[in-house]
Amino acid sequence: MPNHEPPSDRTIVRRGANRAVYDPAAIQTILRAGTIAHVGVITDDGPIVLPMAYTATDDQLLIHGSVANAMMRAGKSMQVCVTVTIVDALVVARTPFHNSMNYRSVVVRGEALAVTDADEKLAALRAINDHMVEIWDTARPPSDVDLNQTLVLAVPLEEASAKVRNGDPIDEDQDLDGPHWSGLVPIVTIWGTPKPADDLVDGIEVPANVSALTGENVHP
Amino acid sequence: MPNHEPPSDRTIVRRGANRAVYDPAAIQTILRAGTIAHVGVITDDGPIVLPMAYTATDDQLLIHGSVANAMMRAGKSMQVCVTVTIVDALVVARTPFHNSMNYRSVVVRGEALAVTDADEKLAALRAINDHMVEIWDTARPPSDVDLNQTLVLAVPLEEASAKVRNGDPIDEDQDLDGPHWSGLVPIVTIWGTPKPADDLVDGIEVPANVSALTGENVHP
Repeated sequence: MPNHEPPSDRTIVRRGANRAVYDPAAIQTILRAGTIAHVGVITDDGPIVLPMAYTATDDQLLIHGSVANAMMRAGKSMQVCVTVTIVDALVVARTPFHNSMNYRSVVVRGEALAVTDADEKLAALRAINDHMVEIWDTARPPSDVDLNQTLVLAVPLEEASAKVRNGDPIDEDQDLDGPHWSGLVPIVTIWGTPKPADDLVDGIEVPANVSALTGENVHP
Repeated sequence: MPNHEPPSDRTIVRRGANRAVYDPAAIQTILRAGTIAHVGVITDDGPIVLPMAYTATDDQLLIHGSVANAMMRAGKSMQVCVTVTIVDALVVARTPFHNSMNYRSVVVRGEALAVTDADEKLAALRAINDHMVEIWDTARPPSDVDLNQTLVLAVPLEEASAKVRNGDPIDEDQDLDGPHWSGLVPIVTIWGTPKPADDLVDGIEVPANVSALTGENVHP
């Protein structure tokens, strides 16, 4: 694997640096497997972190929704930090100091800009909607009113880093002979069976893309 | 249900205010069901958001780990925002504008202080370790060295709010008669079968607390 360098000083993973990943392809894989992003901005009242729908293109993170409100209230900085985390297991060590979790996380720092071009915005919304499963094309297309009521922000993927923990607990040598248990407890997130809306008229089938999810891993 | 008010101006849920929850008991329930927190702080380089292990007592959030490094580098503010989010379903509407997710989230704003008293720190670490499952008492007790290497921060739960979306998609009247599908796709997170560490010596049983998790909901 090529030896990727951190893209900027503020992107260096300081703690647990041995788990840092700067490979853009690895970062893309984690971003594709995530469900939501936690977006942090600075307001006059301190930091605020809100969960948001998102997706990643090759060179941008696209995020959707309310965070822009906090940003616009702040009125002085569009600097954001967007963090996507997937938890894969509880790591149970022989002593609590070495308990941990297995996880995959990506941290992106950068300036968020509103996507204003109509075509770009439509493409961005489609990409965000289709992030987990392609549901855009099986729905009624959005109206111009819908589009105007929606805000999409783009953050460059230039300053991105990932951090990954996997594998067994790492215990002290003195503890290896026992008597305490050590191992992983997997955390598995799967798609359940689709539940039609109460107001759905009879005879409308679950879209094939949606029904195909049942039992699949949400975070592949 | 009593009519709870937002505890401070900066804690008011601005967007989707109809989904805001300020009831401390409801906030506690979400915090107990979560796995990790996303902790946001302000650094000289902008906001940063990192995933952290946490737990909640009646009046404090306790968080564990590296976020303090970024905070100490910032050197001027211990203001944090701690956000815990659980995603329960993908909400598939008849038009993409109404696609959403069902989720439960808590946002806590406040000043983080290091827990320095030895007894308090030990109790805090135990509570964080036992947040998802009680694994403290079945392990070797931590040494003083372990404790000194660990940092625990406490954030008051005074300025906390929750936001909850549940139930069906909410579509436009014009779309209700079809032809598009509408419904929920549940996202279910369960505990998998414990996997002993490769270096575990023979004859050590999985602790009963851990084995009892298998198949249970991680976010009850």
